[in-house]
Amino acid sequence: MENESTYLLTTPQDYAFASDGDDFLPLDCGQTLRHVTLRYECAGTLNEDKSNAILITHALSGDAHCCGKHHPDDRKPGWWDEMIGPGKYIDTNIYFVVCSNVIGGCSGSTGPRSIDPETGKRYNMDFPVITIADMVRAQHRLMKFLQIPRWLAVVGGSMGGMQVLEWSVMYPDEVKSAVPIATTAQLSPQSIAFDWVGREAIQYDANWQNGNYEEKVPDRGLSTARMLAHITYLSDESMARKFGRNLQDSDEYGFNFSRDFAVESYLQYQGRRFVERFDANSYCFITRAMDYFDLADRAGGSLAKSLAEATADFLVVSFSSDWLFPTSQSKDIVHALLKNQQNVSFCEIESSYGHDAFLLEVDTLGTMIRGFLAHQQEVKK
Amino acid sequence: MENESTYLLTTPQDYAFASDGDDFLPLDCGQTLRHVTLRYECAGTLNEDKSNAILITHALSGDAHCCGKHHPDDRKPGWWDEMIGPGKYIDTNIYFVVCSNVIGGCSGSTGPRSIDPETGKRYNMDFPVITIADMVRAQHRLMKFLQIPRWLAVVGGSMGGMQVLEWSVMYPDEVKSAVPIATTAQLSPQSIAFDWVGREAIQYDANWQNGNYEEKVPDRGLSTARMLAHITYLSDESMARKFGRNLQDSDEYGFNFSRDFAVESYLQYQGRRFVERFDANSYCFITRAMDYFDLADRAGGSLAKSLAEATADFLVVSFSSDWLFPTSQSKDIVHALLKNQQNVSFCEIESSYGHDAFLLEVDTLGTMIRGFLAHQQEVKK
Repeated sequence: MENESTYLLTTPQDYAFASDGDDFLPLDCGQTLRHVTLRYECAGTLNEDKSNAILITHALSGDAHCCGKHHPDDRKPGWWDEMIGPGKYIDTNIYFVVCSNVIGGCSGSTGPRSIDPETGKRYNMDFPVITIADMVRAQHRLMKFLQIPRWLAVVGGSMGGMQVLEWSVMYPDEVKSAVPIATTAQLSPQSIAFDWVGREAIQYDANWQNGNYEEKVPDRGLSTARMLAHITYLSDESMARKFGRNLQDSDEYGFNFSRDFAVESYLQYQGRRFVERFDANSYCFITRAMDYFDLADRAGGSLAKSLAEATADFLVVSFSSDWLFPTSQSKDIVHALLKNQQNVSFCEIESSYGHDAFLLEVDTLGTMIRGFLAHQQEVKK
Repeated sequence: MENESTYLLTTPQDYAFASDGDDFLPLDCGQTLRHVTLRYECAGTLNEDKSNAILITHALSGDAHCCGKHHPDDRKPGWWDEMIGPGKYIDTNIYFVVCSNVIGGCSGSTGPRSIDPETGKRYNMDFPVITIADMVRAQHRLMKFLQIPRWLAVVGGSMGGMQVLEWSVMYPDEVKSAVPIATTAQLSPQSIAFDWVGREAIQYDANWQNGNYEEKVPDRGLSTARMLAHITYLSDESMARKFGRNLQDSDEYGFNFSRDFAVESYLQYQGRRFVERFDANSYCFITRAMDYFDLADRAGGSLAKSLAEATADFLVVSFSSDWLFPTSQSKDIVHALLKNQQNVSFCEIESSYGHDAFLLEVDTLGTMIRGFLAHQQEVKK
């Protein structure tokens, strides 16, 4: 492991589609996105036969900065820094790691707040409704640009796991192995419902202005949406253990409506922190992409048929207390793969952390991924 | 069972505390509420020895109209009409049923939208923060007014169940039996969190105006809060069965943000219907009362100690797919009662309906309640 003075430094880079002469990204909705840019970061070194590249796909609120620091003084490293780095579970001394911000995002890649070249103004709600497959199509362009012939592995949790699944069926020859974590092959109606309520909160914010906000942003609506989503990332058990019914500042009930309970204070903090780093329109577009994700639907309702395209080896991981993407949904993926006699390992990790476990159970998850990747490197295929 | 022409007719009545000379209701928060009125309804006939009275306590969005119709042409009967009426499970040919709207409510009883006699204006957010115990104190005044010496049973689900538990420990000599259904002895941090987000949605609505709305009401915020709460009343399974990923009006994704999925359309409908009949400030006050409900806390954290006051026979009922007030929370009540060697029957009803099951599994629940009540009538105690 590195010490502080040798901290892994990563540099955000931009890939503009125009740089390779083909500026068109066709989308599932029928529209075409132009002037696309992907923000991405790399860590480690691509080996000579280009066989050690791993794509990390991020979750709803993630970005390209998955590991290391941009500057030694940065207060925090990338979002999966405990997993990825020199000597870590996804070892950048061994692997070449790539992570890019999804299209529709707000952390460097083209999204609803980008300038529409046709109008010279922000897209806002005129941005086309993108899908998980569209995100993957854009990443595939980046892969070509980086001259990577095949990913040793595509690894991601939550919405990142949806991208992993898409990769495995859209570009089977270019994905040697796939690690979908705490995810689903089709978003459940309950999750669609939560997304709907979150977007309602954003779009009802007086500052939202049909997405055309400038100085005054719909931070209250976005904060409400985030707080709601945050509840679904935790488990009843972890909330009981972390907060219980503890009061925040007093031994007695305040008999008022300000934050009285520790859990209220925590949510408020999470909401406020989120609006500093995330955009409301992006939140709408990315949650909508998740709503539309249904791998089974495209093969007439058969997940097995849909996954039959994949040639990758799979490692599917779920967490016991995750009620947003419960183990049963991971098992649906595993059963479909087994039905096709595809190569799949599966583990449900015991954890009380709920959906957030994919970011918190680093040692258990990391040990599993490290072993899986080592095996992938050895296997000729 | 009655046919349409003999439909049970019920009449809403108002009990003003002032009518018996004592207009003061002391509250847990230390304040005193004056000019209190309770809206209530009765069905059936009080027998000579006044031993057949049953109090029905309602849930968050309920009211005093638990059974029958106010007028034969009413489109819908009271909220628990399948349970209560002539020849029904809680048989008004046998029992005298009373149900009153809680204080803090918006269906006839004194609440935040009532006129504060001190100012001549609506209380709005100056209304005192009430508790479940305060609701029960007010109901107890109604009981005295009706000259009922003891309830044969107090019966209620969800927040109604909290009132049942309060009754059993606050007025043990006046409660012969208690039926808390789909409820908890202390609101969990997860539920506190959902309540918080719901109130944020209301209070961020530009029309809310710190609760001082008049013509323009915060219906969007209230609708968002209701939609969120509604998700927690259903189960993942019931949503999957009822809506799945079905689209509302088309065979293809709309690639937009209007209601595309059936579950979105359903939620939107529920939200819109709710704002027609419920008040935003009441929603804030009643959810806050639930947040503060913790029967264990008042006896130094011991639910058994707290429940030791009760002398009632208990029938505790939970539903297998209720994740808002899961069976484990009902079992906490049962275990505490058993520890005290109190008389308790318990049943977890198998149901896929989630928390809403207490209103939907009428036959299973009703059969159980009917038997329990019949036994209570026989037992001398």
